[in-house]
Amino acid sequence: MAKGIHAVILAGGAGERFWPASRSGHPKPLLRVVGKDSLLSATGHRADAFAAELWLVCGEDHATAMRRELALPASRVLVEPVRRNTAMAVALAATRIAAEDPDAVMVVLPADHYIPDRRAFAADIRKAAKAAVDASVLVTLGVRPTRPDTGYGYIQTGPPAARSHPGLRRVRRFVEKPNAATAKRYLRAGGYLWNAGIFVWTARSILEEVECYMPDLHRVLAPVRKAGRRIPRSVLSRAYRRAPSAPIDTGVMERSRRVWTLPVRWEWSDVGTWESLASELGVGPGSTRLVDGNLAFDDLGGNLVWGRQERPIALLGVEGLAVVDTGDALLITRLDRSSDVRGIVKALKKMGRADVT
Amino acid sequence: MAKGIHAVILAGGAGERFWPASRSGHPKPLLRVVGKDSLLSATGHRADAFAAELWLVCGEDHATAMRRELALPASRVLVEPVRRNTAMAVALAATRIAAEDPDAVMVVLPADHYIPDRRAFAADIRKAAKAAVDASVLVTLGVRPTRPDTGYGYIQTGPPAARSHPGLRRVRRFVEKPNAATAKRYLRAGGYLWNAGIFVWTARSILEEVECYMPDLHRVLAPVRKAGRRIPRSVLSRAYRRAPSAPIDTGVMERSRRVWTLPVRWEWSDVGTWESLASELGVGPGSTRLVDGNLAFDDLGGNLVWGRQERPIALLGVEGLAVVDTGDALLITRLDRSSDVRGIVKALKKMGRADVT
Repeated sequence: MAKGIHAVILAGGAGERFWPASRSGHPKPLLRVVGKDSLLSATGHRADAFAAELWLVCGEDHATAMRRELALPASRVLVEPVRRNTAMAVALAATRIAAEDPDAVMVVLPADHYIPDRRAFAADIRKAAKAAVDASVLVTLGVRPTRPDTGYGYIQTGPPAARSHPGLRRVRRFVEKPNAATAKRYLRAGGYLWNAGIFVWTARSILEEVECYMPDLHRVLAPVRKAGRRIPRSVLSRAYRRAPSAPIDTGVMERSRRVWTLPVRWEWSDVGTWESLASELGVGPGSTRLVDGNLAFDDLGGNLVWGRQERPIALLGVEGLAVVDTGDALLITRLDRSSDVRGIVKALKKMGRADVT
Repeated sequence: MAKGIHAVILAGGAGERFWPASRSGHPKPLLRVVGKDSLLSATGHRADAFAAELWLVCGEDHATAMRRELALPASRVLVEPVRRNTAMAVALAATRIAAEDPDAVMVVLPADHYIPDRRAFAADIRKAAKAAVDASVLVTLGVRPTRPDTGYGYIQTGPPAARSHPGLRRVRRFVEKPNAATAKRYLRAGGYLWNAGIFVWTARSILEEVECYMPDLHRVLAPVRKAGRRIPRSVLSRAYRRAPSAPIDTGVMERSRRVWTLPVRWEWSDVGTWESLASELGVGPGSTRLVDGNLAFDDLGGNLVWGRQERPIALLGVEGLAVVDTGDALLITRLDRSSDVRGIVKALKKMGRADVT
């Protein structure tokens, strides 16, 4: 019987599309994009509302900064020696939690999402946790689409999952990021949810499914399982060197026969691009939003400005732009093109500008 | 009989529409906008091709920097204690030059224009100087319009001025900056020239016309005339305090009955706005121009980027913009709106941001 929920924050991603605010040395979870908290810190506060235990999975570079941000003891931080995508991160965390309690409920939280309604979030997590325990299922939270977004994966829902778990539904299928026409069709048709990458399950359930669908990964983790509550660095390094690199979505979720989804109604964003941040902040025709900058002039509005505090920024005759002004780099992008920012980071790396990527 | 041409560079303007590159502390003539020379320095080189004597009229703040830029002795710099527009600057210079030689030819050159063909320029100045001496006229150089620009004043030409001075024409009238429809009509009709603000006359002629059309100004200058080659600072201060503030164009040129114009064919720009600089530099569809910056990414082109050397700038999905990135301020403007930059400077001053204006 589970003593309490274990929240696992995954903070391995770099957030390249958030360049130049995010850097390899200062990744997206550490950014304060909405309000005073960093995305990571806000995720921690969100977890506090329902979790008895908090875990962090992150890379070596940022372990210290991120630990400090969450005020976590070292024993609760799982430091990945190399990046191996989410399947490995999730399986490692599940293995470690299982060493304490194999039947513990585990909630996977991406470190860089924006969810303002903590209370509604916690209530849904508890509902999902109950289902995960009662029915030994993997629950993925699905967000009702508000626009035909092509940046998210979609979940097509099936019939209600069980009379004892109202709200939860079976999953008909997962769909990769659709094109614009398909996304519009989904929105019109209904029955499609955004795949938020927030998962609820017991450590036992997810490890059983990893063993079934990703046997390589399960095998690689054997020495970690044996290590129990104290995983020597050398054991972890060897496991990571051998681990396949795959997302938990394609590795397990899309193949498992025991996945349920909980459609949720609260506001959610993965803050994946400058455009999605602009939309969260309320940028619209005539309405500019400012993050930490000094906008001295802006005649048309409708822009997102991310600045340094003192240096004045003046916009004349422009709208629908993101202007991101860090001390050492400057990005000006049309908001509706901001999903291509990654290409800039790639170009800069090619130019040998590791100092600004 | 004139011993040689006196070139007088007027460097009193701030160039507010060139913000944030131009500042009250670093005005437009000191900017290097095209090539390695500052606009002022290029003007000096241009004058070297025809002038025996070089004079500079400028404000106190920049006298030292500008003198150094032109390598001028202090005796050739007329420092204005306050700004009083061009009529006073011109009349002061004419008075001072007359103290050496009342019949000297004087050429008035704005300090911040762009004229790449020095040789053609010098040839036309000599032609105008000959007319100014022979016919005791005020000659204004007129540039053949290449587009219906609404940022310039126009000169409507009259018949040829004199058989002995081919090329020179009488002036029918001066026209203030026209609206777009009128400018188009002028371009179609022909017989209209851009008023470049470059004047050629003898010191005697201009002082006679000042006496006739601006008697107040002439009277104010009496103590300066008396002072001859050494004008005490106190005398100059008193004269400036009392002097009317008017452009030489409306004060004299538009009223005088002895104005000729010399239509010229060389490339000219007053580099009055970011748009006009962009046009000089060859910014066009798909073609971005960079002044002193590091453009790391620019997928569409068609922009003008004025940057700091190291800091990378990335443009994504934007065109037709000027991006001006100084250390302490940032301007992003549509090129076709850049004539309104002055409004930004005004707003910043209102906000008490003297540090960046």
